Order: sequence, then structure tokens, then C-alpha cells
Amino acid sequence: MEIQVRKNILGENDRMAAENRAMFADNGVYVINLMGSPGSGKTSVLEKTMEKLKGELRMAVIEGDLFTSKDADRIAKHDVPVIQINTSGGCHLDAAMVQKVARKMDLAALDLLIVENVGNLVCPAEFDVGEDDKGVVLSVTEGDDKPLKYPLIFKESAVAILNKVDILPYCNFDMESAREDISALHPGMTILETSCTTGQGIEPWCEWLRQRVEEKQNR
Amino acid sequence: MEIQVRKNILGENDRMAAENRAMFADNGVYVINLMGSPGSGKTSVLEKTMEKLKGELRMAVIEGDLFTSKDADRIAKHDVPVIQINTSGGCHLDAAMVQKVARKMDLAALDLLIVENVGNLVCPAEFDVGEDDKGVVLSVTEGDDKPLKYPLIFKESAVAILNKVDILPYCNFDMESAREDISALHPGMTILETSCTTGQGIEPWCEWLRQRVEEKQNR
Repeated sequence: MEIQVRKNILGENDRMAAENRAMFADNGVYVINLMGSPGSGKTSVLEKTMEKLKGELRMAVIEGDLFTSKDADRIAKHDVPVIQINTSGGCHLDAAMVQKVARKMDLAALDLLIVENVGNLVCPAEFDVGEDDKGVVLSVTEGDDKPLKYPLIFKESAVAILNKVDILPYCNFDMESAREDISALHPGMTILETSCTTGQGIEPWCEWLRQRVEEKQNR
Repeated sequence: MEIQVRKNILGENDRMAAENRAMFADNGVYVINLMGSPGSGKTSVLEKTMEKLKGELRMAVIEGDLFTSKDADRIAKHDVPVIQINTSGGCHLDAAMVQKVARKMDLAALDLLIVENVGNLVCPAEFDVGEDDKGVVLSVTEGDDKPLKYPLIFKESAVAILNKVDILPYCNFDMESAREDISALHPGMTILETSCTTGQGIEPWCEWLRQRVEEKQNR
């Protein structure tokens, strides 16, 4: 019974995700669904991305949060359109939530739409929202054992951003081992090392986004 | 329909949690359900707890993990009985999972049973497993905005452990503001500052546990 309900929920989600994907394709907008633990630095990476790509790519952000608009407020300061989804305690975004707000956006006026998911290394990975790519942000403060402990999110993502590398010397994180584990879970996956404090790795991440947007628009 | 299913699942969980609670009470064992984000340091805090309380309290640990036994292996090194629950990707422990393994344990031979939940700041807070208290571990690397962003887990917990304070100087974390927010969410809640690197705060945390165990045994 429980399994059947779960199948139905995921089936309905996949149907709406397909609708979203068609809508994004019609408008030529590249969509990335950014996931990660609470405090991994998703919003900080987005803020650095906005600073770097403003005036170059036409961007908007959908912010998923349980209750507050704290992250949306941070993005709004960068003069980038941001729409907030409050899940009222729900642990992930789903395709219906994203569709509801995306329908209100001028998608044709965008090159890049970033969906920042709820802070959670587990549930968001199970729900397609119609994105082109999923990405995962992992802070080095979380420990190098996390890829093997939370494998699905790494298998599902096209890019892994290993963040807060400025405090790597104070953390128990073996970068080589983490990279090996991620590559074993998802061969060929792009792995970037970033710090929003020093700016390290932000340009390669923005370059990765530029290429993905360009590929989408040439499709 | 979805709401009804959810109510049924939670109702069934509460029923089994009540069974667990009675079983723990019959055996005079105090049970704490420890929650927190991936990488907040739950297992490290447990390792320090084992070192400190070994020979003084009779302890066992139930380790919740998605797939691996990495955390259980770390606890087993301290010669404390540990049972692993693999949720096969499930984002939280529930009362049925805990009951299944707790029935195999010699509960009468224990003073303290620690349940380490799946690394997730959202879902575990919704599921009673029959514990006496819930506790939340938050790493200061996650940022001081987390209590207000993830309020339920702080409302549900009797104790908040603010961990990794040794790297506070390198983090954007206002301790006073975090304490105020936690106290506003849950007035009177115990808030401890710990570092598993320097050992700071481990003794007050163990003293808190000792008192809770003693209160349970005098009930």
C-alpha cells in the first residue's frame, strides 16, 4: 500500500516534470536544480554567481525554503529576479511547486534559471523538477565520507561543488579521497573546488554554467 | 488523499513509538534520538561521549544510515554495542525500524541508548521513535541562520549541541544570535557549545546525559 502510494506520487511528479522540461525548452532557458545540506553554501555560491554573470546572462532564481525568505532576500539584493517557494516544512521541492511559480515568470527573457532546493542531502535528489541538470554543493566541513554515505545525490548530479575550501586546513577532509569516491559513483562528473570567501573556483563554475547555457541554446 | 495517507503513516508510527517507549521504560533505559545535518558531527560527538562515559554508564548505540556502515564502524571501535539500521535511501528513522532492532538488544543491561538518526535537519524531527529526548547537533560551519530556517528540529529537541566551535573564527556564525533564535524557538532549551577536536563542552554534555539517565532511573 505504502509502496503503491509512493509510486503514484513519483509518477505524478515525473509527469509534471516533463511538462516543466518542455516549457523550459520552448523558452530556451537552461535550468539547474542546486541541492546540498543545510549550510553547504548554496546561497553563497549563487550570490557569487550573480555577481560574476550579471550583465552577461539573463538570470532568475527560484528559492526553496521550509518557512523563511532568508535566502530569497539575499539573492534579491543582487537585483536578480527571485521567487520564493515555502514548502511549509516539506523536505524537498517537487515539479508541481516549481511549475506553479515558473508559469508566472517571463521565461523567454531568461538564459539561466537556478532552482535552489531545500537544504537536504537526501530527499531532493529523488524529485525531478524538470531541470536540465542537477548540481550538488558539499561543504568540506561536512567530511569526506559524505559522497559514499549519500550516493544518490552524486549519481543524479552533473556537477559537484566542493565548497569552503578556504577552511580545508581546519577540517578532516581528504580531497583526493572525496574526488575518487565521487568519480566512482558518477564517472566523468565535473568536480569543482570553491570558496566564496576567497573567490577560488567561482570562475570555473561560471564557465561551466556558460557552456551549459550555450549548449542548451544551440540545441 | 495524500494528507490522509500521511496521517495514517504518522498515526501508525506514533502507535509503535508508544510501544517502544513502554519497552524502554520497563527496562529502565534512557533513550536519546540524536539528529542533525550530514557532517554536523553527530558521530564524533558520540565517539567522545563513549570515551568519557565508558565504565560509568552501560551504553549502546543504534546507528541510522542510508546505505553504509561507516558510522557504526566508528562506534564499534569504542567497544560499545552498536546496531546498524540501513534505511536503503530513506531519509529518517521511524519507530518500526527502531523497534525491530531494539527487540534484539539486552535493554535491561543498559543505562543509556543513543539513536543516531540519518543526517538530515528536516525529516527525522517529524518521527517519534519512542525516545525520552530528542537532541540536535548543529555545526557552526552551517551558519547561524539555521535555527530559524529549520525550526521544527529545535522545537522538538531538549538539547542543542553547537559543534565545531574550534573553527568558529573561520565561520560566519554569530553565537549570540544563534542562541537567541534557539531560545526563542524553544524557551529553556539546553544549549551546549562543543568541539570534538579540543574537547570543549564534552564534559557538560556528558553531565547533561548523566542527569537525564539518573532522572529516568529514579522515575
